[in-house]
Amino acid sequence: MTHQEDFHGHIAYIPERKHIVEALQRIRPFVHRTPVLTCSAIDGMLDARVFFKCENFQKVGAFKYRGATNAVQSLPDHLAELGVATHSSGNHAAALSLAAAVRGIPAHIVMPENASASKKAAVHSYGGRITYCAPTLQSREETLAHVLQASGAIAIHPYNDERIISGQATAAIELFEDVADLDIVLTPVGGGGLLSGTALAARYVSPRTSVIAAEPEGADDAKRSFHAGHIIPSVSPNTIADGLLTSLGEKTFAVISRFVSDIVTVDDATIIRAMRLVWQRMKIIIEASAAVPLAMLLDKGIDASGLRIGIIISGGNTDLDKLPWMEHRMDIE
Amino acid sequence: MTHQEDFHGHIAYIPERKHIVEALQRIRPFVHRTPVLTCSAIDGMLDARVFFKCENFQKVGAFKYRGATNAVQSLPDHLAELGVATHSSGNHAAALSLAAAVRGIPAHIVMPENASASKKAAVHSYGGRITYCAPTLQSREETLAHVLQASGAIAIHPYNDERIISGQATAAIELFEDVADLDIVLTPVGGGGLLSGTALAARYVSPRTSVIAAEPEGADDAKRSFHAGHIIPSVSPNTIADGLLTSLGEKTFAVISRFVSDIVTVDDATIIRAMRLVWQRMKIIIEASAAVPLAMLLDKGIDASGLRIGIIISGGNTDLDKLPWMEHRMDIE
Repeated sequence: MTHQEDFHGHIAYIPERKHIVEALQRIRPFVHRTPVLTCSAIDGMLDARVFFKCENFQKVGAFKYRGATNAVQSLPDHLAELGVATHSSGNHAAALSLAAAVRGIPAHIVMPENASASKKAAVHSYGGRITYCAPTLQSREETLAHVLQASGAIAIHPYNDERIISGQATAAIELFEDVADLDIVLTPVGGGGLLSGTALAARYVSPRTSVIAAEPEGADDAKRSFHAGHIIPSVSPNTIADGLLTSLGEKTFAVISRFVSDIVTVDDATIIRAMRLVWQRMKIIIEASAAVPLAMLLDKGIDASGLRIGIIISGGNTDLDKLPWMEHRMDIE
Repeated sequence: MTHQEDFHGHIAYIPERKHIVEALQRIRPFVHRTPVLTCSAIDGMLDARVFFKCENFQKVGAFKYRGATNAVQSLPDHLAELGVATHSSGNHAAALSLAAAVRGIPAHIVMPENASASKKAAVHSYGGRITYCAPTLQSREETLAHVLQASGAIAIHPYNDERIISGQATAAIELFEDVADLDIVLTPVGGGGLLSGTALAARYVSPRTSVIAAEPEGADDAKRSFHAGHIIPSVSPNTIADGLLTSLGEKTFAVISRFVSDIVTVDDATIIRAMRLVWQRMKIIIEASAAVPLAMLLDKGIDASGLRIGIIISGGNTDLDKLPWMEHRMDIE
């Protein structure tokens, strides 16, 4: 790891090229090499060529399985045997549960008791051991500390971890292997694991490619942090893109502040329209968070015309009984 | 074409191997070579290896574009120039519209005036010229006859046409190229274009593979025709699989009665469950009609255990505002 001092004097560890190459080799036996899809109708709408790297087809339905697998598989045996732990109710919880099950070790997942039945069921189906907590950050952290002490498990943070960042970088590495001469790669941004990994992947293997993030207007802390030059925590975020509610971490921010070209926001109505457009025209299921980059392009957040653009489709886990355009329709009717 | 007398003394023309090979060469520049996907969760549920040939990713979202393209592209210029025509409100209408647009000729589509707005919009978006008729078979046929006389266009039947059958056969040809040693290939059956094409493809390039059709219980005319040895028309069919309402034609029946191993029915509740399972686990959008073969397997309509099974996913066009499991939930609540 290179050691660089960030704006607050903290030491930030930025994964080097070799860490990402090692991550790719380490996780390759365990993850799907996801396809890159295109859609002439969407290209026509944008006057651009868009290449969708479909991590919605990844195991557990999200790119998160890459980072979780890299973290779990890189633990030495004597640390791994007591298991791993995290607090999360989303894709990281499912990803860590399956990654641990594949290695044959326990995964302890701290989840708020009000998490949806489908999220509890997903973690359970992948073998995660759930400990419930109150739905506050304080309760999550205290409960996780207790679980760590009782189990001896290793904590794996959802994004503020070099092993996670290196694992998430592998999606963009594969995209660059499959598609030459990309002008821009877009990702959504929540905690910044996918964004920072993608930025490093571009820097190391396709330095002419700019990396730009798209973020919901209702959770624009990453954009504000990027422009302020320090982390501004997310307070009361409100967006349909429920995978993007968290704040940046110091490790992801250290990468993002240096290697990302811009962060551009878009509103929820456009996110829902982009999500529906992909379902309708591409016949693939993507979650709202994954639709944010395309929404930003539809909204002309950047000038895409004539460019070759990669988009990392972050995941496809959505409640099929409650689709956002139906809620939205009800709102306006 | 080989000429064979069918059970009623009609002459049935069965496409030969060379017609299918020519169809594949003819349409290749115009159609997507669709991917074959697998799903370990579904394999586990069935104790089988299932290979999904994803024609939901085909242009216009359905295999129908293959047959329509083969028919349109095989017309000599002097016949093509006045255009093509059909009566259909479904995927064939959209497919013929786009196939004609690609060749630069008009497509006249006769549709019942009560067709859904989304179906009208689809045909319109591909450049089809719509003539409305009353929602009866008699009105459809009379209106089409009038359109043909007024325009000089060539009628292209949705399935009872050798060019259509040969075009639909190309999906299975590609599947056999990509996946070796299939024990069974499954398709849904409505008018029988996809089923008869698939049966011929298997006979010509993978004769050890059995071809079996899956059909909704509420539209079981193909099963009854198959067992009776003559076409029994579909009367008042009622199923969520709205692409499978039509009766077999004499040309499709001539192939199906000779080269298909069996036709097995399944109920709508299981079709909806299979459709939702594919959306949930594979993250791809398939229409209800496309879910019928998987539903039949889930229902143990045949013994699949230990087998390698291909399924042609026929299409992905569905109303995203009105999903069948939501209607179904309302029914039982």
